[in-house]
Amino acid sequence: SMTNNSAGESIDLAVIAGDGIGPEVVAEGLKVLEAVTAGSGTKVTSTAYDLGAKRWNATGETLPDSVLDELRGHDVILLGAIGDPSVPSGVLERGILLPLRFALDHYVNLRPAKLFPGVESPLAVDRVAPGGIDFVVVREGTEGPYVGNGGSLRTGTPHEIATEVSVNTRFGVERVVREAFARAQARPRKHLTLVHKHNVLTHAGHLWRRTVEEVGAEFPDVETAYQHVDAATIFLATDPGRFDVIVTDNLFGDIITDIAAAIAGGIGLAASGNINPTGSAPSMFEPVHGSAPDIAGQGKADPTATILSVAMLLDHLGRTDEAARVEAAVAADLAGRGSAVRTTSAIGDAVASRLS
Amino acid sequence: SMTNNSAGESIDLAVIAGDGIGPEVVAEGLKVLEAVTAGSGTKVTSTAYDLGAKRWNATGETLPDSVLDELRGHDVILLGAIGDPSVPSGVLERGILLPLRFALDHYVNLRPAKLFPGVESPLAVDRVAPGGIDFVVVREGTEGPYVGNGGSLRTGTPHEIATEVSVNTRFGVERVVREAFARAQARPRKHLTLVHKHNVLTHAGHLWRRTVEEVGAEFPDVETAYQHVDAATIFLATDPGRFDVIVTDNLFGDIITDIAAAIAGGIGLAASGNINPTGSAPSMFEPVHGSAPDIAGQGKADPTATILSVAMLLDHLGRTDEAARVEAAVAADLAGRGSAVRTTSAIGDAVASRLS
Ligand SMILES: CC(C)[C@H](C(=O)O)[C@@H](O)C(=O)O
Ligand SMILES: CC(C)[C@H](C(=O)O)[C@@H](O)C(=O)O
Repeated sequence: SMTNNSAGESIDLAVIAGDGIGPEVVAEGLKVLEAVTAGSGTKVTSTAYDLGAKRWNATGETLPDSVLDELRGHDVILLGAIGDPSVPSGVLERGILLPLRFALDHYVNLRPAKLFPGVESPLAVDRVAPGGIDFVVVREGTEGPYVGNGGSLRTGTPHEIATEVSVNTRFGVERVVREAFARAQARPRKHLTLVHKHNVLTHAGHLWRRTVEEVGAEFPDVETAYQHVDAATIFLATDPGRFDVIVTDNLFGDIITDIAAAIAGGIGLAASGNINPTGSAPSMFEPVHGSAPDIAGQGKADPTATILSVAMLLDHLGRTDEAARVEAAVAADLAGRGSAVRTTSAIGDAVASRLS
Repeated sequence: SMTNNSAGESIDLAVIAGDGIGPEVVAEGLKVLEAVTAGSGTKVTSTAYDLGAKRWNATGETLPDSVLDELRGHDVILLGAIGDPSVPSGVLERGILLPLRFALDHYVNLRPAKLFPGVESPLAVDRVAPGGIDFVVVREGTEGPYVGNGGSLRTGTPHEIATEVSVNTRFGVERVVREAFARAQARPRKHLTLVHKHNVLTHAGHLWRRTVEEVGAEFPDVETAYQHVDAATIFLATDPGRFDVIVTDNLFGDIITDIAAAIAGGIGLAASGNINPTGSAPSMFEPVHGSAPDIAGQGKADPTATILSVAMLLDHLGRTDEAARVEAAVAADLAGRGSAVRTTSAIGDAVASRLS
């Protein structure tokens, strides 16, 4: 719905398979993308970009400017996972993942949480029924405590002080809040919950609150609610059916989308989109899970999160029919899954075969 | 275990009943304190301090210096809850609750999560059994994003920028980490998990990580683990039995202790201690829940969290026997509770009567 690309045209895809299980799950995502577009006359071109632990270990490079420039030239990016124990914590996150989100201005980090029939939630049945779990978190992606604005003084001494600065702008908050309202308005329930902690983080919190109030005037049919982040986690565990659309900052969004994934059947199913709604740079779709080096290369990873990320990618390209078909194929696969253990590619094959 | 006060002596208590359901639940906490100390020869003196929404509405005062000085003179503080919709968000939190924690140097915010027999968890049974839920969060209480070090520029304009600074010192981190190790060492499992987000908040995160490594050398029998805060929330929802002691910063601690309360039967049962282990100022015990103005004055509030906070208070004063007796009385009450609805004072009476 965001760009004017539609069925019958071409899809020029950049693929960052990444580390660990990344290449395995991405292969299944691409398999499903081929299957759903087959016969539509669409030409899918994928260009692989080699970013991640292997490149860093070999060359010390994270995200070279030349690669970033090339990425900008594609319609859309599919990312597997990045991270490996051989690389110090933070190097790839702050060298690749976050620079991509920031440079490509992915200010909408979209993370749906939907409990599909046949999928078990860790929540007791009476907490999930009858409304089910079907909400979407709109996480801000380019500000907040993620800006890398911190430092340390007298590092490693008894007098060390380390700071982290959360930076929030009206510009940045307003654009993501407006997007969240628009998404809420397009859903049957038309309900938007702001999650923050404005009783403690008063400056950032009041900026968020005022912005929701003011932008809300443009969306009189959307009902709004507010939850402190701590209280929101309680409701996620006890009454997730109350949520429809949640809008929140980068760090709170990181935390609550992992709880959301957990209650909706686990991180193996959680898809996400790093979206630049203006179209000034390609959006990027990726599973919420990490590179899981402990199971890499064994065909054990569940590619469902990546396949659902492909559905989000298609939706973003305006190919809403194909997106719905992929989601329906995943739903059918999940409904019949039971306790059988299948390999990564067997799951990809099963979903793809439902699309032929 | 922290001070040399013990059974038979006096307890000089400051009581801040506060707003909403605060006075109701505090009355039951005091009832139980009377019951468990009765016959021990202990003289319990309570001095009430009137702080909260009513005082602010009447006088504009939050925590006057003179009151803070008086509070310092008591052995220990029992707090009900503070907060009311008539007061703008943040005023009482940043005017009373946080100043108390900061001024009295409550650097250990101790929050146990224990699922008592008879209490229902929102988690499916297979997630809770067989290990149960029995861990304690040691939340840092005097640093991090709670320091109030933020501001806004061009407030209310399209060019507004609002910041919040998380301040972390080696001094502050080390002392709470050492306390967490000591508490882990005293427990059968001797396991400590650091929860942070050091791949994004690298400066603060690395300070925490290094400190855990270095202080850990003093506790060779304590096993340590690390979880990013987002992943930790998943484990809290899917496998809470893995946790024994968690140490974390002020904001992450705020969030995960609400999830912990939720999975261990709800915020109506969650106790906490704001502890100054040096004894240089009184520690303060309070239920994790808020003032719940919607049910205030109706006898509907569950005083159990406050009663369990009284058990923590007794433990802190070295009255471990009495603490254990209060906890056992609560456990017995919970085990027999079933679905009967009782008033606030009926629950307090029931627990107190088990102590006579
Ligand atoms: C890997 C990390 C930088 C990332 C984040 O914190 O955003 C991840 O947890 C996510 O949620 O996509
Ligand atoms: C009321 C608020 C300031 C407080 C906090 O954030 O610490 C509360 O949520 C808590 O957990 O005790």
